[in-house]
Amino acid sequence: MQRTARAPEPGELTPKGQATRARILRHAADLIYADGVHATNNEKLRRVAGVSGSQINHYFPTKQDLVLAVIGWQAESVLSFHRQERFAGFESIDAFREWADFYIGYERAYHEGCTLGSLASEIIKTDLDVHGELADAFDQWRSIFRTGLEQMQQRGELGDDADPAQLADLLLAAFQGGMLLAQAAGEIGPLRHALHAAVDQVATFATSGD
Amino acid sequence: MQRTARAPEPGELTPKGQATRARILRHAADLIYADGVHATNNEKLRRVAGVSGSQINHYFPTKQDLVLAVIGWQAESVLSFHRQERFAGFESIDAFREWADFYIGYERAYHEGCTLGSLASEIIKTDLDVHGELADAFDQWRSIFRTGLEQMQQRGELGDDADPAQLADLLLAAFQGGMLLAQAAGEIGPLRHALHAAVDQVATFATSGD
Repeated sequence: MQRTARAPEPGELTPKGQATRARILRHAADLIYADGVHATNNEKLRRVAGVSGSQINHYFPTKQDLVLAVIGWQAESVLSFHRQERFAGFESIDAFREWADFYIGYERAYHEGCTLGSLASEIIKTDLDVHGELADAFDQWRSIFRTGLEQMQQRGELGDDADPAQLADLLLAAFQGGMLLAQAAGEIGPLRHALHAAVDQVATFATSGD
Repeated sequence: MQRTARAPEPGELTPKGQATRARILRHAADLIYADGVHATNNEKLRRVAGVSGSQINHYFPTKQDLVLAVIGWQAESVLSFHRQERFAGFESIDAFREWADFYIGYERAYHEGCTLGSLASEIIKTDLDVHGELADAFDQWRSIFRTGLEQMQQRGELGDDADPAQLADLLLAAFQGGMLLAQAAGEIGPLRHALHAAVDQVATFATSGD
């Protein structure tokens, strides 16, 4: 790997280059989610993505470039999921219940955990310089919850004593911790418990008879 | 490393052997907590523990033996902490508040996370065969919380509608997830929010005016 080479931004690439870069990235994200960062190397990636080693090195000169791009990819994917119309901006208790039920029914949860959280946990102590990207991704996620709760509060559906920032952190932490405990236990129970109880805590501030 | 050698149990060792094994283990636990499992190798361990490579190989023939022993060590340490008299078996809301405040004031929290949870997250996708030990350690931790809540319920201090198993999972998940988010953010805020909100949820079931 040439340490002096710079990873090209997608905007600097031809459409064909963008497609190749996207294919490598998609396979890298899958490999890292299934096997972890340490077990993912260029040889495996070359094989599953059907590209050459020099193509990988062109788009991602170092492992840090690849991991940064995978963080961005997973963050985009999890944020898009939360921005779907079905959750309607998380402006109701029902939206949070639907969200919890989705993950409780998601079979990869207790095998491989959260796409972003398990990646964060694995690399947070390594020398890879990825803290800014991770912090930013979790901030955006937390904001989606907080904004929904603030909207409810402004409409009077959530009491004035509710703290949207605190509740957003509870929801995100219960999700991340519940995923880890479900993985360790090999069953979904801990995630189900944690998400139901976290949403119940939000519901204690609801002003209508929920 | 000789793959055929078996790690000797502490009970099979002389007092001097037990002391050497304990010294290696303590330093291995520190190294793994600070740098992660992947960055911990026999050469570093030899240096910080002041032992020879053959001593390490004698007590821990494979990396899996070492990691299993470190899981056991960290589990014992976290369980002993929770069994301290100051928490009085977690039979009151105040005990949970004191527990939350301890970790919120603990400066290593947002640098290195939970001693057991961060280790679990890092190795859960590796080939190391450590899932049984991890599941068992989290089970025992959860039981400490659940048993305290059950005692409160039996004494009528917690309503019949409280589910001690669910609340125990919420507390443990909020702790694990809050630690991860605090590490990613580089500040304690997310852990403080998650723990306060989780204990508040327990308190909604309190029968006295808490």
